Amino acid sequence: MKKFMDKDFLLSTETAKNLYHNYASKMPIIDYHCHIDPKEIAENKTFDNITQIWLGGDHYKWRLMRANGVDEKYITGDASDKEKFFKYAETLPKAIGNPVYHFSHLELQRYFGYDKPLNKDTAEEVWELANKKLQDSSMTVRNIIKQSNVTDICTTDDPVDTLEWHKKIAEDETFDVNVYPTFRPDKAMNLEKVDYLDYLSKLEAASGVKIESFEALTEALANRIKFFNDHGCRISDHALEFIMYRPASSEEIEKIFADRLSGQMPSREDELKFKTAFMMFVAKEYTKYDWAMQLHYGAQRDNNHKMFDRLGPDTGFDAIYNYCSSLEMSQFLNALSSKDELPKTIVYSLNPLDDATIQTVIACFQEAPVAGKLQHGSAWWVNDHKKGMADQMTSLSNYGLLANFVGMLTDSRSFLSYARHEYFRRILCELVGTWVENGEYPNDADELKRIIEGISYNNAKEYFNF
Amino acid sequence: MKKFMDKDFLLSTETAKNLYHNYASKMPIIDYHCHIDPKEIAENKTFDNITQIWLGGDHYKWRLMRANGVDEKYITGDASDKEKFFKYAETLPKAIGNPVYHFSHLELQRYFGYDKPLNKDTAEEVWELANKKLQDSSMTVRNIIKQSNVTDICTTDDPVDTLEWHKKIAEDETFDVNVYPTFRPDKAMNLEKVDYLDYLSKLEAASGVKIESFEALTEALANRIKFFNDHGCRISDHALEFIMYRPASSEEIEKIFADRLSGQMPSREDELKFKTAFMMFVAKEYTKYDWAMQLHYGAQRDNNHKMFDRLGPDTGFDAIYNYCSSLEMSQFLNALSSKDELPKTIVYSLNPLDDATIQTVIACFQEAPVAGKLQHGSAWWVNDHKKGMADQMTSLSNYGLLANFVGMLTDSRSFLSYARHEYFRRILCELVGTWVENGEYPNDADELKRIIEGISYNNAKEYFNF
Amino acid sequence: MKKFMDKDFLLSTETAKNLYHNYASKMPIIDYHCHIDPKEIAENKTFDNITQIWLGGDHYKWRLMRANGVDEKYITGDASDKEKFFKYAETLPKAIGNPVYHFSHLELQRYFGYDKPLNKDTAEEVWELANKKLQDSSMTVRNIIKQSNVTDICTTDDPVDTLEWHKKIAEDETFDVNVYPTFRPDKAMNLEKVDYLDYLSKLEAASGVKIESFEALTEALANRIKFFNDHGCRISDHALEFIMYRPASSEEIEKIFADRLSGQMPSREDELKFKTAFMMFVAKEYTKYDWAMQLHYGAQRDNNHKMFDRLGPDTGFDAIYNYCSSLEMSQFLNALSSKDELPKTIVYSLNPLDDATIQTVIACFQEAPVAGKLQHGSAWWVNDHKKGMADQMTSLSNYGLLANFVGMLTDSRSFLSYARHEYFRRILCELVGTWVENGEYPNDADELKRIIEGISYNNAKEYFNF
Repeated sequence: MKKFMDKDFLLSTETAKNLYHNYASKMPIIDYHCHIDPKEIAENKTFDNITQIWLGGDHYKWRLMRANGVDEKYITGDASDKEKFFKYAETLPKAIGNPVYHFSHLELQRYFGYDKPLNKDTAEEVWELANKKLQDSSMTVRNIIKQSNVTDICTTDDPVDTLEWHKKIAEDETFDVNVYPTFRPDKAMNLEKVDYLDYLSKLEAASGVKIESFEALTEALANRIKFFNDHGCRISDHALEFIMYRPASSEEIEKIFADRLSGQMPSREDELKFKTAFMMFVAKEYTKYDWAMQLHYGAQRDNNHKMFDRLGPDTGFDAIYNYCSSLEMSQFLNALSSKDELPKTIVYSLNPLDDATIQTVIACFQEAPVAGKLQHGSAWWVNDHKKGMADQMTSLSNYGLLANFVGMLTDSRSFLSYARHEYFRRILCELVGTWVENGEYPNDADELKRIIEGISYNNAKEYFNF
Repeated sequence: MKKFMDKDFLLSTETAKNLYHNYASKMPIIDYHCHIDPKEIAENKTFDNITQIWLGGDHYKWRLMRANGVDEKYITGDASDKEKFFKYAETLPKAIGNPVYHFSHLELQRYFGYDKPLNKDTAEEVWELANKKLQDSSMTVRNIIKQSNVTDICTTDDPVDTLEWHKKIAEDETFDVNVYPTFRPDKAMNLEKVDYLDYLSKLEAASGVKIESFEALTEALANRIKFFNDHGCRISDHALEFIMYRPASSEEIEKIFADRLSGQMPSREDELKFKTAFMMFVAKEYTKYDWAMQLHYGAQRDNNHKMFDRLGPDTGFDAIYNYCSSLEMSQFLNALSSKDELPKTIVYSLNPLDDATIQTVIACFQEAPVAGKLQHGSAWWVNDHKKGMADQMTSLSNYGLLANFVGMLTDSRSFLSYARHEYFRRILCELVGTWVENGEYPNDADELKRIIEGISYNNAKEYFNF
Repeated sequence: MKKFMDKDFLLSTETAKNLYHNYASKMPIIDYHCHIDPKEIAENKTFDNITQIWLGGDHYKWRLMRANGVDEKYITGDASDKEKFFKYAETLPKAIGNPVYHFSHLELQRYFGYDKPLNKDTAEEVWELANKKLQDSSMTVRNIIKQSNVTDICTTDDPVDTLEWHKKIAEDETFDVNVYPTFRPDKAMNLEKVDYLDYLSKLEAASGVKIESFEALTEALANRIKFFNDHGCRISDHALEFIMYRPASSEEIEKIFADRLSGQMPSREDELKFKTAFMMFVAKEYTKYDWAMQLHYGAQRDNNHKMFDRLGPDTGFDAIYNYCSSLEMSQFLNALSSKDELPKTIVYSLNPLDDATIQTVIACFQEAPVAGKLQHGSAWWVNDHKKGMADQMTSLSNYGLLANFVGMLTDSRSFLSYARHEYFRRILCELVGTWVENGEYPNDADELKRIIEGISYNNAKEYFNF
């Protein structure tokens, strides 16, 4: 029996251990997609206790507590931080096999030096130890990032953002980690939202463009894309229900937009036409700047209205949206490709069933000179588990070139989540190691080094031009 | 090489063997969903030969014989019981890897003490041995149940059922196994059926309510729910094409129902609106009594009309229905949750692809104080195989708290099917044992005991309030 | 660590090795579905260099090169054969885990006697060695087929084909491999194509039937089916978007067809009605001749219009089409079954998610006397990888009788692809071997021999009446 989560965690063969310890673990981290607040980096935030840094905004953990019948008081309510931590500690042993079980213990090991399982019996010990450790200067936000060996972080930002914190960080010579913005214009696209016109006002203010037509909207967007590019942005990000393609004439689009400006809500079909036109435009702009476009689709958000009214979005009430049209996905990419306006693109679905579909569709649009111009993104969000990651990488290998994969990201709000890169790399090394041990791939040290270091770090560095 | 289906069947590690032999195998059985006829328990039925108890109504076995080109005469036709048994024995070796292969041999081992493989060479030996054993008093229905260590059985019953056999069993002090009814009002919901009005007459008779409106229908249902509750019922069951949500005003529903009463068949859209209203009502009632609501969806029934005309339903001609809307599933649960009328709910899909969708949708509605208020039910029917069960439990662990799972049920018409609980428990112990052996979960005897005994028995006992 | 792709490649247990080396590897090959040009067999084609035989029409390899950012010049363009080979050799190591990696090396081992990995360092060596070997008389098309131990080949042919090459091969007594045509009438069915009327002219010429009505079309088809049957054809093949069922009256069908004859394009709904009627007719004809009908569905073709304009179809720009209705699939089979016009049928989907759906639907139509009358075809095209094949066979075993499976086919344009049968058989033996080693199936040598030899060869021979 292997020891609980020891140095060879998830590594069952000598080759896997060798690949991990000699190559993967030594590579720095590019966290090219996360939801960290750059202000907290700029101000070098500190934390009073483990509940603040661990349970503050982590809806993965909240979901587990709710599934265990824990009262909301101890999750997002007015219980004390210590009570909340104890409720989490009681819940955790039930999360056998869950990635959050592993993430939690990896974080306790790497950041707090605690190697035993967390449960109700050890909760007091961990509470004391962790809170003491958090007073240490090594546990400021910046030092957590540094000790995690992170070289580049991409936050997620609205087009109207001033990027002031990114600028401050860039100007601060005492901190040498690159913190780039990511352009995420969902609010500018979602014209079916009731507060859409309010948002347009903000976009007008930020861009200095009076938005009286769809064409003016695209001017405002182009303006902000340039602004983001000037501040080091190399990536955009989009949340889509599915990758849609409902083409329409520019007259139609102007009409839909004009109606919305006058307060009229669009039909579903008009909404999809507008979004198609929106995406076509921004993709063209991204191509100009050689950005990578991330498409995150398949999330069905805010399912529980009672809790939404109480807590708002991003509080643990999202699910998989299980509709996806392979045809529209293809038609969208084709429409861009036909005009040579298809940027580097990374497709993620929250539905793990879409792996093979995505793989075979994007394979139709690969083209020189970029190796892996279109990417199937790493197992996303709820699929960020051992099987999810292994399945996604197996799918990559079955349907394409695993070796060109740009690899892992945290997608997280927490500064302790860099441990997820370790989790990912262990799973990668186990997968590749097994193939080598079974004689399915040659034991060629140079090639294996290239593959592991590539997926861990180098591919992302090259792909995003960092 | 391991011996064929020996005591360590499906258990590959020391931890798995330990978990199974010391914990799982010692727990009694709650069979909370089956299709056994309570009359047969009340009358303590006996069987003349193994064909009667094994092949009588077991359409799992019939399908395999048909797939082997066996003439229907030897399946449901007028061949002798011995001929039928021999045809099955000839077919069985071809079912390599099939769960029915394992179920059959587990049943031969546990109930008939026969340890060798059944095939055409051993058919005569098994025929003699089994039929002799069936004359033994240990092989009455009640004694089979007792020797299987079953404490609670939930049958599946129509609202118009008198529950007389349940009552008889409850009053019989010589038999201490609880046999509860389950409320399954499909016939009251399926207004698109040609014999719907006939059914309503029966429901009127049973409830004493004149059903002249949808409101009256709900009164009749409320009446029968109370009657079932008085007879120990704690669970309902529903067969749905998919979990639908098509809200409509009460006026609309009354209109749809009035039209149907007048003999007019509903449109598909009206059918779905009616069914939504129906489900909303009964769910509210179940909440009052703290029942658990089972939703079985995704079965496409009676696909072969030629054979349906000859043999009727439930004869081996059903398939997976592969449409399911994550959105409507969520909207249905949300509509109930918003009014605090969402009962404990167990969702099963016949489509194994729905695992992650179900898991992530129900996670949005978990709430205190019940641990695991919403459950993703055990791998159902055709998915009741080693991979299906392991996949479902892996999915539970990936997306939620496996430790709160209420576990296995037979869903069977046969009294020998309790062996499926053993099959399930072995798969569970193998899964958990592997995690412990690999250092992915601590080797904590107390916690492991709690998890294994919980999923085998205790969780169901607590969840259903038995 | 096992050696790279040695004699026990993919075989991890003694039983698996035994099954493969003693049974599977000794069986000849029936390649019942491929896209080889019979003219090349008749003329006993030879090849100047490895690029011609390996990269000439192999769009699997082209896709990998494109995914590696290789310029089209080196794929389908005007680069030299040697340059193209080198670009492929550079790409190959990145295809870790990809079936093409394994196919390529199996082919190098079996046909060229080269046992080391192909990469940029060994490219020159392989180029020299392979080209020299291709001058050898053992490397004519016929001798490749003979040394591959192939007994029967089924090509894929249009109804208007003269079958002259098949006739020539049949008459040539120096070549004893059977080369049968397969009837693939897609062009006669796809009335939505712009060149449909041109095609009908050809069909008129071939059949001698003036096609002025749908009824006349069916006469022409019946005529060609008989012609194909007279030339040894035992199998048909169809490419369908999905298995549709949109019944219509013969009047409607005649109207749709008459409109198309007059130049009017059909609506989508009319297209599907026409195709349903078309399929119903040909299926009836196949039943008369006891042919097997292959239904290949779920491919979304020619996704990249820019490249289609440049290279045409079948050049590596196809993907999975992810819509499939379990209901229509069932209704189509039922409509035929109800009239006793359902032929032996093999269903393949390009979407690997459809496995369980297909299995459970076809199980509803199995009937005596053919064992496995309906088959779920081997993992198709992009799914032809280790996991895809293992998953498909596991699904067969979970939902039906694996032992009746008709097994593997190459589906290939290349004469070196017979190595894929070896790949398949190794995966089969590993799967079955594991079950035996784990005590999940008896170590019964006779039964295992029957199963392995059956799936490798005997089942297909019996099923197709070769």
